[in-house]
Amino acid sequence: MVGLPARGKTYIAQRVCRYLNWLGIFTKVFNVGNYRRKNAGAEQPHDFFDPGNPQGAVARQAAAVEALEDMFRWYNNDNGVVGIYDATNSNRERRSLIMEHCSRNNVQVLFIESICEDESLILSNIMQVKLKSPDYAHADPESAVEDFKARISHYQRAYETITEPSLTFIKLVNVGSQVIINRIQGYLQSRVVYFLMNLHIQPRSIFFSRHGESMFNLQGKIGGDAHLSPRGLEYKSALPGLIDKHIGDEVITVWTSTLSRTISTSELLPYPKLQWKALDELDAGVCDGMTYEEIEEKFPEDFANRDEDKFNYRYRGGESYRDVVHRLEPVIMELERQHNILIIGHQAILRCIYAYFLNHSHAELPYIQIPLHTVFKLTPRAYGCDVEQYKLDIEAVDTYRPKPKFLRSSNSSSKSSVLTEASQ
Amino acid sequence: MVGLPARGKTYIAQRVCRYLNWLGIFTKVFNVGNYRRKNAGAEQPHDFFDPGNPQGAVARQAAAVEALEDMFRWYNNDNGVVGIYDATNSNRERRSLIMEHCSRNNVQVLFIESICEDESLILSNIMQVKLKSPDYAHADPESAVEDFKARISHYQRAYETITEPSLTFIKLVNVGSQVIINRIQGYLQSRVVYFLMNLHIQPRSIFFSRHGESMFNLQGKIGGDAHLSPRGLEYKSALPGLIDKHIGDEVITVWTSTLSRTISTSELLPYPKLQWKALDELDAGVCDGMTYEEIEEKFPEDFANRDEDKFNYRYRGGESYRDVVHRLEPVIMELERQHNILIIGHQAILRCIYAYFLNHSHAELPYIQIPLHTVFKLTPRAYGCDVEQYKLDIEAVDTYRPKPKFLRSSNSSSKSSVLTEASQ
Repeated sequence: MVGLPARGKTYIAQRVCRYLNWLGIFTKVFNVGNYRRKNAGAEQPHDFFDPGNPQGAVARQAAAVEALEDMFRWYNNDNGVVGIYDATNSNRERRSLIMEHCSRNNVQVLFIESICEDESLILSNIMQVKLKSPDYAHADPESAVEDFKARISHYQRAYETITEPSLTFIKLVNVGSQVIINRIQGYLQSRVVYFLMNLHIQPRSIFFSRHGESMFNLQGKIGGDAHLSPRGLEYKSALPGLIDKHIGDEVITVWTSTLSRTISTSELLPYPKLQWKALDELDAGVCDGMTYEEIEEKFPEDFANRDEDKFNYRYRGGESYRDVVHRLEPVIMELERQHNILIIGHQAILRCIYAYFLNHSHAELPYIQIPLHTVFKLTPRAYGCDVEQYKLDIEAVDTYRPKPKFLRSSNSSSKSSVLTEASQ
Repeated sequence: MVGLPARGKTYIAQRVCRYLNWLGIFTKVFNVGNYRRKNAGAEQPHDFFDPGNPQGAVARQAAAVEALEDMFRWYNNDNGVVGIYDATNSNRERRSLIMEHCSRNNVQVLFIESICEDESLILSNIMQVKLKSPDYAHADPESAVEDFKARISHYQRAYETITEPSLTFIKLVNVGSQVIINRIQGYLQSRVVYFLMNLHIQPRSIFFSRHGESMFNLQGKIGGDAHLSPRGLEYKSALPGLIDKHIGDEVITVWTSTLSRTISTSELLPYPKLQWKALDELDAGVCDGMTYEEIEEKFPEDFANRDEDKFNYRYRGGESYRDVVHRLEPVIMELERQHNILIIGHQAILRCIYAYFLNHSHAELPYIQIPLHTVFKLTPRAYGCDVEQYKLDIEAVDTYRPKPKFLRSSNSSSKSSVLTEASQ
């Protein structure tokens, strides 16, 4: 990362990290601010960051080196794939130091510079994020803002935007209203650049719900293209009132799969609608239309394998959760670009989408609880995502199948908001 | 398009056009050079392009207006979605004129500027493309190059690169080694930008073959996950020799689907391999594992519908060719980024990939002949794509099912190289 304080570097780093981990690319952020606080203590006044303050400079340099060394240890010992080095890296000298260390370790470098000239955006970042940082745990807000502005101005004096023509970089100007990319190569860099191009920070919410209860749900069968049950039809009738209550005058678009149970559930919603083949339920292949009991009887070995590693298990002639994550990637990209969206979807599909926004691991993902007849509202925040659930009082079968106890244990997902904070 | 002559504008325009039409987004290029030649005649000397030549200026302006008007007629009468206005548009005045016309017609504008400082690239473009243009049909090459350089210098004097901050644009510098994007919004713009980011012009070839004949092929069954037949195993053994002969010392990567017949066919190839779920055969849903006769008997109406509009017909619980095109989009994007690739795939999948490179319509696509035991070699050229076929002398069943004669007629695909030329 490259950029002055309060330019959204940590936000960008966290978002890229979440996206890549969701895709299965092992990624970790190394935030130099955390090392600096650990070593020198938090709540340092702004003159700690004055380039003319030798004591501060030494401490900050030590933190930068320690974070970098930790990152290389992680690459070598923990099979790390993408390390995100989250610091200001705001001059040529520092960047050439990084290049040197990285090429010695055979690590390719993509610099992500965030430039923001919009004073109101910077101030809102300071207010929303920086004042909640451990650096200002005991300061009153007004003097904290003043101190932070003084800290920025120390960096500003020495700041050199990237102009080195040999470096691979992306510059994001004013949250992506202009983007400059240089010497991007390879699949990973190209994916990260496309992801960053599509990010926006306008407030919005993503609503989703499974289809109303289907006849297959009642019979305990998976897959298929069944119609709604009588209770499913009740849910379909009640849904427009619930959505209207939470959306009000805002604009929303409804996305469904191409299967009749989601299309039918969406029918009475008075909003524009779009069908996505990519939102169709996980394909159970030869097990399509069977109950879990039938699968266990017919394919006992497969059934056991699935319990052992549900994320990677691929049904014969069908899909794994990992396959579904890849097929959902364009949906996620489009969700990033869009404003309010309501998805009427399926259990496995919504688990993958929920895991993306709430940063759940691949091990947790297939066990996330997405009950029938319940609307979820996800609201992305600066660092994390708020979750609300609205359960309609219309009974439905419980299709949740917990991980059998005798297997290796795995944490089940937490359904509370995940709020992580990091600041430098 | 924006840019000096010989900067690859027409190449870029044609590539974007082909990509969008393949995705099902109706796109057409309006090349001002063609209008100019139609009106003023081809083989005009360079001083026709001198801004100080009033006669030339009037004729060129008239051609620009006529092309623009044709484009708006196409938007209004033929349901055009993306019109590509292929001209130099090399100053602010011209661009503001375009903006005015477009906003009056409710058309959003994305400017694509191609900048090239690399003299050798420009010269190679002149040699490979411009000298073949009708403008130089009767000129000797040397004086044609001199004349074309003089033409460029007329434009160069009045050239203004895009700096207008209110315009939506992408600048490609030296074939994408640097890219600048400004105010990109919406799905379509974002797709076009990502596509342009990933284009390269290094020479390379894409090889593909269907898997060796499978037991299901022998039995006339579709779908499934059958093993290779004895003749399929012969093909598998013969394949490495054939590929080696045509690849020699070059680097190549093999892509297969996740189905056993493609993985098995690739097994003896001594190159790095990658399995793509997205390369799996078109999912025939409830018809998986049936013969065409069984499908006709069990689902006579579906069978007739499929013959009527094969591209859009979706098998119950399965996929249509249109679905497959969308699932292949990331594969195509990756093919654009990569160098030599060998795909061991399936009939429907390879039809979609072939149609992309050879610019076949959605109506033609499902009837493209991709016989078993045959290697195709596609070599993208400046305007078009060369095709070679190598048939191994190992018999296999013919799985081709022609379009029934009593239906609406449709052109079957041509298998010769498609070479289109356009220059301004």
